[in-house]
Amino acid sequence: MRIAFIVYDDLTLLDFAGAYDPVTRLKTMGFLDDLEYDVCAMGEKVKSFEGLELIPNKVHNNLSVYDYIFIPGGNGVMKLFGDKDFMSWIKGVSSSTIVTAVCGGALVLGAAGFLSGKQATTHPEFMKYLYKFTDKVKDSRIVSDGNVITARGVTSAVDLGLYLCERIAGKEAREKIQKQMDYLSYTCD
Amino acid sequence: MRIAFIVYDDLTLLDFAGAYDPVTRLKTMGFLDDLEYDVCAMGEKVKSFEGLELIPNKVHNNLSVYDYIFIPGGNGVMKLFGDKDFMSWIKGVSSSTIVTAVCGGALVLGAAGFLSGKQATTHPEFMKYLYKFTDKVKDSRIVSDGNVITARGVTSAVDLGLYLCERIAGKEAREKIQKQMDYLSYTCD
Repeated sequence: MRIAFIVYDDLTLLDFAGAYDPVTRLKTMGFLDDLEYDVCAMGEKVKSFEGLELIPNKVHNNLSVYDYIFIPGGNGVMKLFGDKDFMSWIKGVSSSTIVTAVCGGALVLGAAGFLSGKQATTHPEFMKYLYKFTDKVKDSRIVSDGNVITARGVTSAVDLGLYLCERIAGKEAREKIQKQMDYLSYTCD
Repeated sequence: MRIAFIVYDDLTLLDFAGAYDPVTRLKTMGFLDDLEYDVCAMGEKVKSFEGLELIPNKVHNNLSVYDYIFIPGGNGVMKLFGDKDFMSWIKGVSSSTIVTAVCGGALVLGAAGFLSGKQATTHPEFMKYLYKFTDKVKDSRIVSDGNVITARGVTSAVDLGLYLCERIAGKEAREKIQKQMDYLSYTCD
């Protein structure tokens, strides 16, 4: 099981960290010892919108080897649309890769052509733009349709991460991870 | 208004990012233009417990200039207790600095002597250790006592960040930031 977390300049750090935390716990808490996860970017360094520099551990690497890729949102998304090298890199996933995104990351999936005919969601402010890529925009916290999984705004990254934990390793693993994260789900009922 | 986010090897990235996001929005969303925030460490690079390298923008700097410091948790906390240079650095805050922490970061505050006689909280698994530093351990999401503010486990970093937003810039700013983060508070009522 291999997962790539895509990072780029002016990403929202919490969009990334919110999903990175629960998913990496699949390995660090011993639920999935053979999980491999990488933080991948087009360059040697990435600067978040807030100003923090990150060092990805894979640079412009082959994305076709991953079972999942995850794309966070952030102000940098708007620059990615015109970045042919970046878009070409993202399009290099395999046909069986499950593509996931939170917030504005869903627009990147759209621009890469992954959302055609698919249900998807994004941050409420971006839903009007998401219609450019699919007419099946859905206002839910998490939307899963075939090989595409998207989540709403920033903090829904945590919910998406936990959703992936359950999908990959089952409900019990998800519940233990959620407890360790001291997280009360967005559905308080 | 100056805030220092302390990072160290083997921190839990989400402990940091969860608070960093809402607090930095005070500036990026225009509520507090003169806010200065720094990511501070003892060395030029820090590696999170999950394996991501970060580049702090201040190294072993003078912490007495900050109005607030924030300390995330993570497995690295256990190594900090025996690190005289780190503990001495942290103790260099001014007497008026408000010291804040999430999860195991509260134990660092304790080891630095900030919790004596203070109400405080931490991750449920660490509460037994927190008693070494104060007999006023409280099992609440966020605990504020004088110049010490602590929060429970990992994801409570988001709640602590939002709490600081309200304290610093008022309820309306907090609500707008929370909405932009698409965050449904842990108190669903």
